[in-house]
Amino acid sequence: MTIKYDAQGLIPTIIQHAQTKEVLTLAYMNEEAYNKTCSTGETWLYSRSRQELWHKGATSGHTQQVMAIRLDCDADAIVLEVLPNGPACHTGATSCFHKEVLKKPSDLGSLDILDQLKQVIATREVELPKDAYTTYLFNEGIDKISKKVGEEATEVVIAAKNRDAEELKWEAADLIYHLLVLLQEQKLDLYDVLGVLQKRHDKH
Amino acid sequence: MTIKYDAQGLIPTIIQHAQTKEVLTLAYMNEEAYNKTCSTGETWLYSRSRQELWHKGATSGHTQQVMAIRLDCDADAIVLEVLPNGPACHTGATSCFHKEVLKKPSDLGSLDILDQLKQVIATREVELPKDAYTTYLFNEGIDKISKKVGEEATEVVIAAKNRDAEELKWEAADLIYHLLVLLQEQKLDLYDVLGVLQKRHDKH
Repeated sequence: MTIKYDAQGLIPTIIQHAQTKEVLTLAYMNEEAYNKTCSTGETWLYSRSRQELWHKGATSGHTQQVMAIRLDCDADAIVLEVLPNGPACHTGATSCFHKEVLKKPSDLGSLDILDQLKQVIATREVELPKDAYTTYLFNEGIDKISKKVGEEATEVVIAAKNRDAEELKWEAADLIYHLLVLLQEQKLDLYDVLGVLQKRHDKH
Repeated sequence: MTIKYDAQGLIPTIIQHAQTKEVLTLAYMNEEAYNKTCSTGETWLYSRSRQELWHKGATSGHTQQVMAIRLDCDADAIVLEVLPNGPACHTGATSCFHKEVLKKPSDLGSLDILDQLKQVIATREVELPKDAYTTYLFNEGIDKISKKVGEEATEVVIAAKNRDAEELKWEAADLIYHLLVLLQEQKLDLYDVLGVLQKRHDKH
């Protein structure tokens, strides 16, 4: 596959978090940066403002380990999937794309709610804010959390047996939430669990 | 927020699936395309090769409903989160970025495995390939699937009580997988369940 660099010898490069799939940065690579990225396994870019090769994170320490590289259909744009060793943005934000211009209100579910929820639960465990249900669960401990996982699983089964999709939607959400609380209490990362599903993928 | 268009009056636009977070396309907007996108709620672009305004999907029918717009820190790149009404790529692929150059082998879990698994399970239900465990579950029906959800939830609890993180990792993966099978059997979309978690987000 031959990369099509533009008239300036650059290719736009979308940097995406390999686990959360959040878009972190749009940057550019020249051929040297691309080759460096491939040979070192870390993100190398070409800075258009400074007109120089740029090892992402060389100064800040926020390097990025490259997990996948994909070209688009006409080979003139690249996606790098990375594991970032810190925020991608110079402002300290996880992603450079943090200026929200529009957000349509909707009940549309998306995968990243699981990552957001995981982070909320982890913060609750540390801060234990009063009146938060998650605080109550952590204060009660693993027996209570386990009982809730069992209870919600049973409620999922009952809703399924009643073929009540509306009820099932709520109970399945409850089960997932309590499972996330249990994982946090056990200091087991959701991504380790998803890694198991990934490994077994072909066997289902 | 003022958008910084480049010397050609364009801004690079990353189009991302609002639910799966897959990067679909890198394209460009000029000011007119940006204004059309905002006023119509669908993706409008500027085609550099045809040098014209381009309503994505006008010919193919594969329009995209815009759910969110985000600018990056220096306002010279845009992310559009969209609900696509069909494949983004002219080749018929879901995403334009389907040419894999590198994929590091790893057990690294990522959120998109849930979407992949959901699709595999839906396909299994239609094709019922022999020897697939998922086929066995669909053939047995909702009672068997429900029993498995209950069983895996119990195994999650036992692993948690034993503080056995390795065992818990496997049991939690089993629970999630069987829950996805149950949702498929009930024709309830995983994203509807995630939508509930999104709606409740502040209440945890």
